[in-house]
Amino acid sequence: MEIRNATDSDWAEMWRFVRPILAAGDTYCWPRDSSEDAARLWWMGKAGGRVLVAIDGGTVVGTAEIHPNQPAAGSHVANAGFMVASSAAGRGVGRALANRVLELAAEDGYLAMQFNAVVETNTNAIRLWESLGFQILATVPEAFMHPERGLVGLHIMHRLLREG
Amino acid sequence: MEIRNATDSDWAEMWRFVRPILAAGDTYCWPRDSSEDAARLWWMGKAGGRVLVAIDGGTVVGTAEIHPNQPAAGSHVANAGFMVASSAAGRGVGRALANRVLELAAEDGYLAMQFNAVVETNTNAIRLWESLGFQILATVPEAFMHPERGLVGLHIMHRLLREG
Repeated sequence: MEIRNATDSDWAEMWRFVRPILAAGDTYCWPRDSSEDAARLWWMGKAGGRVLVAIDGGTVVGTAEIHPNQPAAGSHVANAGFMVASSAAGRGVGRALANRVLELAAEDGYLAMQFNAVVETNTNAIRLWESLGFQILATVPEAFMHPERGLVGLHIMHRLLREG
Repeated sequence: MEIRNATDSDWAEMWRFVRPILAAGDTYCWPRDSSEDAARLWWMGKAGGRVLVAIDGGTVVGTAEIHPNQPAAGSHVANAGFMVASSAAGRGVGRALANRVLELAAEDGYLAMQFNAVVETNTNAIRLWESLGFQILATVPEAFMHPERGLVGLHIMHRLLREG
């Protein structure tokens, strides 16, 4: 598996799994019926952001993006997003992307990484982040409208990136 | 004191206090040297947002804005921002704006209000929110670069808006 910076020409392959992930509506606060253009701008157009893709067998099987969680006085804390094609589940794509994102965020000078909205029913993601040293700082109650479960909590997760 | 929806023509008076508040750099994650256009777009251009002004003696002395904290599946939680002219400090402008924002957010159908980045040294604001029923859900460590104190924490504060 190769992980590299995304290019504009990767988007068509990314959209093949981004679209069903958004349509499922159980992991991201983004419209389930998002247009392709809006989804691309959301994922690839964040201020100060960078986008990665994971390539396996010549195909884009996952993507991650890193961006400042806040501007200016808060821009030393990174935020990140991750998506993996369901066809590539179980192959460690998410973990490989996460490790690379943590490396790159530290290289880019970020001091910490924060997730604002990890859906509390997304247990695979939570397990991954906890195994990589993230802590749940808080759970915002009833902050996410899950398509099957109704209102569920959103975890705020955090990890320092500096060496002890 | 009157509180009403802001109009485009209010901006010139708002900028007279927005600019020094941003320049001080101790309460908002926004560039201290922000251009007027960038500041106006940031404050008045948020997706799904509404902006209020407080008028006293015929002058705009404060402003607040309400917007969804997240899109789509998270859009039932409001976020809000507040600024009061230093020349009007101590007159209850912030509290009046806060009360109106809580009323309007409930009327607009939001179920809760969340602040993502209350600088932990901003004790007046924290006291105000706590007196209005907000709780500190978590403090993100070292998430804000304070111009005098260096890295300080950002509180995540939250309140449900529903009647018990």
